[in-house]
Amino acid sequence: MPPVYGLIHIYGFSVRTTFISLTFKCLDFPLRHILRVLMSVPPPHLPGTLAGVIDLAVDWMTDLKEGVCLSAFWYSHEQCCWTFNETSFEDRDKCPQWQKWSELLVNQSEGASAYILNYFLYILWALLFAFLAVSLVRVFAPYACGSGIPEIKTILSGFIIRGYLGKWTLLIKTVTLVLVVSSGLSLGKEGPLVHVACCCGNFFSSLFSKYSKNEGKRREVLSAAAAAGVSVAFGAPIGGVLFSLEEVSYYFPLKTLWRSFFAALVAAFTLRSINPFGNSRLVLFYVEYHTPWYMAELFPFILLGVFGGLWGTLFIRCNIAWCRRRKTTKLGKYPVLEVIVVTAITAIIAFPNPYTRRSTSELISELFNDCGALESSQLCDYINDPNMTRPVDDIPDRPAGIGVYMAMWQLALALVFKIIITIFTFGMKIPSGLFIPSMAVGAIAGRIVGIGVEQLAYHHHDWIIFRNWCRPGADCVTPGLYAMVGAAACLGGVTRMTVSLVVIMFELTGGLEYIVPLMAAAVTSKWVADAFGKEGIYEAHIHLNGYPFLDVKDEFTHRTLATDVMRPRRGEPPLSVLTQDSMTVEDVETLIKETDYNGFPVVVSKDSERLIGFAQRRELILAIKNARQRQDGVVSNSIIYFTEEPPEVPANSPHPLKLRRILNLSPFTVTDHTPMETVVDIFRKLGLRQCLVTRSGRLLGIITKKDVLRHMAQMANQDPESIMFN
Amino acid sequence: MPPVYGLIHIYGFSVRTTFISLTFKCLDFPLRHILRVLMSVPPPHLPGTLAGVIDLAVDWMTDLKEGVCLSAFWYSHEQCCWTFNETSFEDRDKCPQWQKWSELLVNQSEGASAYILNYFLYILWALLFAFLAVSLVRVFAPYACGSGIPEIKTILSGFIIRGYLGKWTLLIKTVTLVLVVSSGLSLGKEGPLVHVACCCGNFFSSLFSKYSKNEGKRREVLSAAAAAGVSVAFGAPIGGVLFSLEEVSYYFPLKTLWRSFFAALVAAFTLRSINPFGNSRLVLFYVEYHTPWYMAELFPFILLGVFGGLWGTLFIRCNIAWCRRRKTTKLGKYPVLEVIVVTAITAIIAFPNPYTRRSTSELISELFNDCGALESSQLCDYINDPNMTRPVDDIPDRPAGIGVYMAMWQLALALVFKIIITIFTFGMKIPSGLFIPSMAVGAIAGRIVGIGVEQLAYHHHDWIIFRNWCRPGADCVTPGLYAMVGAAACLGGVTRMTVSLVVIMFELTGGLEYIVPLMAAAVTSKWVADAFGKEGIYEAHIHLNGYPFLDVKDEFTHRTLATDVMRPRRGEPPLSVLTQDSMTVEDVETLIKETDYNGFPVVVSKDSERLIGFAQRRELILAIKNARQRQDGVVSNSIIYFTEEPPEVPANSPHPLKLRRILNLSPFTVTDHTPMETVVDIFRKLGLRQCLVTRSGRLLGIITKKDVLRHMAQMANQDPESIMFN
Repeated sequence: MPPVYGLIHIYGFSVRTTFISLTFKCLDFPLRHILRVLMSVPPPHLPGTLAGVIDLAVDWMTDLKEGVCLSAFWYSHEQCCWTFNETSFEDRDKCPQWQKWSELLVNQSEGASAYILNYFLYILWALLFAFLAVSLVRVFAPYACGSGIPEIKTILSGFIIRGYLGKWTLLIKTVTLVLVVSSGLSLGKEGPLVHVACCCGNFFSSLFSKYSKNEGKRREVLSAAAAAGVSVAFGAPIGGVLFSLEEVSYYFPLKTLWRSFFAALVAAFTLRSINPFGNSRLVLFYVEYHTPWYMAELFPFILLGVFGGLWGTLFIRCNIAWCRRRKTTKLGKYPVLEVIVVTAITAIIAFPNPYTRRSTSELISELFNDCGALESSQLCDYINDPNMTRPVDDIPDRPAGIGVYMAMWQLALALVFKIIITIFTFGMKIPSGLFIPSMAVGAIAGRIVGIGVEQLAYHHHDWIIFRNWCRPGADCVTPGLYAMVGAAACLGGVTRMTVSLVVIMFELTGGLEYIVPLMAAAVTSKWVADAFGKEGIYEAHIHLNGYPFLDVKDEFTHRTLATDVMRPRRGEPPLSVLTQDSMTVEDVETLIKETDYNGFPVVVSKDSERLIGFAQRRELILAIKNARQRQDGVVSNSIIYFTEEPPEVPANSPHPLKLRRILNLSPFTVTDHTPMETVVDIFRKLGLRQCLVTRSGRLLGIITKKDVLRHMAQMANQDPESIMFN
Repeated sequence: MPPVYGLIHIYGFSVRTTFISLTFKCLDFPLRHILRVLMSVPPPHLPGTLAGVIDLAVDWMTDLKEGVCLSAFWYSHEQCCWTFNETSFEDRDKCPQWQKWSELLVNQSEGASAYILNYFLYILWALLFAFLAVSLVRVFAPYACGSGIPEIKTILSGFIIRGYLGKWTLLIKTVTLVLVVSSGLSLGKEGPLVHVACCCGNFFSSLFSKYSKNEGKRREVLSAAAAAGVSVAFGAPIGGVLFSLEEVSYYFPLKTLWRSFFAALVAAFTLRSINPFGNSRLVLFYVEYHTPWYMAELFPFILLGVFGGLWGTLFIRCNIAWCRRRKTTKLGKYPVLEVIVVTAITAIIAFPNPYTRRSTSELISELFNDCGALESSQLCDYINDPNMTRPVDDIPDRPAGIGVYMAMWQLALALVFKIIITIFTFGMKIPSGLFIPSMAVGAIAGRIVGIGVEQLAYHHHDWIIFRNWCRPGADCVTPGLYAMVGAAACLGGVTRMTVSLVVIMFELTGGLEYIVPLMAAAVTSKWVADAFGKEGIYEAHIHLNGYPFLDVKDEFTHRTLATDVMRPRRGEPPLSVLTQDSMTVEDVETLIKETDYNGFPVVVSKDSERLIGFAQRRELILAIKNARQRQDGVVSNSIIYFTEEPPEVPANSPHPLKLRRILNLSPFTVTDHTPMETVVDIFRKLGLRQCLVTRSGRLLGIITKKDVLRHMAQMANQDPESIMFN
């Protein structure tokens, strides 16, 4: 069934999926919980539906750069030729309905002028798409740019970025995602899909007061949404859940595990119902290998891991340096121009090379695939033994033909190009994911290594390392597997994922057989990359943007105490506190004016310093403003009482202001002797923003999340002031 | 390769796996961490090796109950006949080397007297194995009994059961596990394998002071070991990790995720190297189905879910009632007799029925399997269309033959027998797992339903529900899938697992195709079982044994405050506290004698009640004892100082005792206004045992974990005194 039929049926399938999802939800808990449960999982078929629509639109628009379908202009190349010649496999891509621009406009399909016209129109379309995308982002939703994963990590750790998950962001990100991917830029849609899914989750949780009013509950929904996002991006529901657990989420209770799994599964099935890849498969890159791997192959796999780690380090360093330059120099003022220039360069260099001209996911798909007997690709141009009958599977290793050597050169050029251009692309003011470009770099390198090993084994099967497992006529090396291992290594080097990465790859191949090579590569690449710097690309971007993010992965093992970190330090002015029954409205207003703290501890009296509670600055300002406007007799020298029962005031004194209701009576405290290891643990696990420090019941100081972050940087021998905060 | 060859190679393979594991560990982190990492993961091939040895021994001893191999007595039936006739598939089980006891002893293979002799020896062997097992457990390692999962859950939540994970427990549990499984009792080895793996983890962490001294770090190793245990039990590494996350672990940081995954993977590969199932497969029940499922089949799947939920409820209620009876009446005094009686009953009833005579995992394996063309089993005795050619796969639905009907009756009897006997078996003083019996109950029920639906569809394919998808000659119903769904439902009903259950089953089938049926059944069964009682079997046993376990899954939503829960209550005598500089040794000794608290808060003075720290009872006793013995001048009326610098004492007064070093200077405090929701959260996330309650710096009271548990029971309308504590 050509994919477009799926599009027509979206609503039919959606209804079916909703029915299933409703049934499941009802069965999950006793009946009285049904309503609560109905609200607890955002309709997870929405990310699936969006992903399907994006896939179809990208297919069409990518092909639009090369030509158009005469029978129906909304058909992609593949859909256009599907109906024409379903049987002939070799010429699947050639049919009279599909016309290149040169054929349509000047009636020429070959020759220099046709080539130049196609080249020119390819660049023009790319520029048009990119310009549209960057303009839409700039005008309507500035938050739609980037991959969104650093920001979602920060949001899930407790920071609030208003509007980041809004409806406009959702809409614009979806539309511009299609445009930028179609424009041929070196970026993917997988990361942004996580952002899109989180926007969906946020939208649905905003419909119910239970979620919109409780940040904690909303974050649980967002964790599930992130899982659904990866699930539809790769068709890997379990990998999606583990990605959400390992990479995105901050606090992951069991309830969230179950919801994430559910959301990921329904999203994946919705995507499969839409069937955008036209192969009834859930996964983006479905592969089937026929040969096991051998111990000796671990060596090239580990080499690929080293390559992945080096690429990760190189990419993170260069990309962060470039992004910092963009932030600090004039460059940042011309985002549209930047996008246009990068798109133009990408299109100009990409068109002549067949491996960069096509969409990156098609490229990866081809690199992952094992060469079957019917494969017409240049990469499978092996010299066949004429005496051999050709079975479909299990073809022995053969000598490479001219096409393979040619492809190797083109792939090498593509590799260099991809490595350089991706550094400049990621971080521009357009939606851009990093999964696909990283995987492409790894897959190209892996395929080159794989073909190399294969040819080495074919021509030198008497070498001692090959003798045991690679007899002539045996199918012993699978270059596609090397491509997959390389892709995992490069993705691991950039993101520092391990378990979720291996599981995503495992779901692509569907067999435990290849887990060891994948793990070996993922772990090597993580090790190599970690040796040059602990941060993955997402953490690096979090730092670059100065979000207050307390990473759960760092271990804090220093022996400092709370007293070393708390403010005020020795010699600093004393802590700004409120007293429970002796400060006037004017005193408090002065304090608020003179400081910019988010809140103030309330003590019994300045002498005893015994802690009563904590008052938020915002609520204090609001309460005083309201009291001055509405409450009779509250003037500047009214006394503010935080006590339960304010004492009787003499008749001539001003009316008191009772503010106990805005007081947080259970502020979090630790003693000054508490080890910072414990304090960091408490901040992480309880998601605190500040914590008060006491000694024998007396208030001594305060530790905020920023103090903790600065202290951790200091202990790690970094300059604490290098940690910027927005 | 017959499995026994694997046994010979265990050490060869182990070395190989160790090599891989070392390589991985080295690559995980920068080189300077190598040593630390080497200690961080317990050599995970040990559980895998143990599991392989257990599998081989169980195979041999189970067959020993029926007969013996003449060529080598240590061969199991299958191994014995392997070399004899590898080609003939139908008579695989018949060979002259393998002799039943009757053939060997009285030279008769058929006839009533031979049957009775075999019957008698079957019972005798079973009794011998069971007697040996229960005696070994009683004499050497009382903790080796049961499944161990409730205790491991409790240990991971912070409670310490000394000796529970000791070397003796490991050794005896491994040996007796082989004995009890071979004795034919209705129990499995999967749960106890988790305990065995945790013992291994504990053993290795006891070798390194970093782990043996830090309870938290040790628990992380145990979490990883639990994952390895499930991984080898089912050959499902990812399922193992999720089981550890969902069911066993209390606190699961990311580091543990990665280690668990690694441990689970290496354990699984070690098991595969040993190859105990002789099929090169990682999984216990490998199945391959050829038919998709249809929407209409969801109805029987959900029915199976309901059955699973009912079975779960019935089992938990009856088993707990029986175990309580065992605890409280005379029954508990005769554990050996109890085991002997149950074994005798099991053997007597099991022998005549072919489905209960064999080992339970073989039974499940047969029930899961789809009937191929070559299947000789009674369950596959369908009437074949003589005109049809017989392809290996994809056989259309056929009418059932006499064998199938016969098998249905025998299976129904086996179902009733298994349901009843399992209730009495689980909880006896022998190692006993619940996974396999639960799955057997579900698989039998599922297969019966599956065959029913299949025959219904064959004979009534014109019915409206079948018309769309089940034309004559089509293979539309797979009874094996029903067995698998039923097994998942029953296991889910008993343990209340969801995600990990579905993932384990997914790893058995290896395809996302059947996730929806499995999820539907698992969720239905959880819902039905939850409607009758929230507790799974493990939580129920934790309650029964009175372990202080604070379940992370329960939500606490009541609006009570810390002040409502803390001790002392209104009207009770005041809190027993120490003062920092005014109590004598005698005062403290009296306080220790009169109370049985685990520790005492230390305050500035009884008047001010400002909290200084917390002193453990044990350390207090030890310190005073040491001081009296060794320190000159410390007498009953010496004053104990907890202050930093004790004041100068007059020359004639007794020598003071300085105890600041035993003082915990950072006890955890909350204010009396803190909502209990927050307090429960803090107890869970930080794994506290007690927490002090203050108001404006004054100590008011204390909340212990037991107070929290009692309060939660009270809020859930249970009698708080029903929660016993050891």
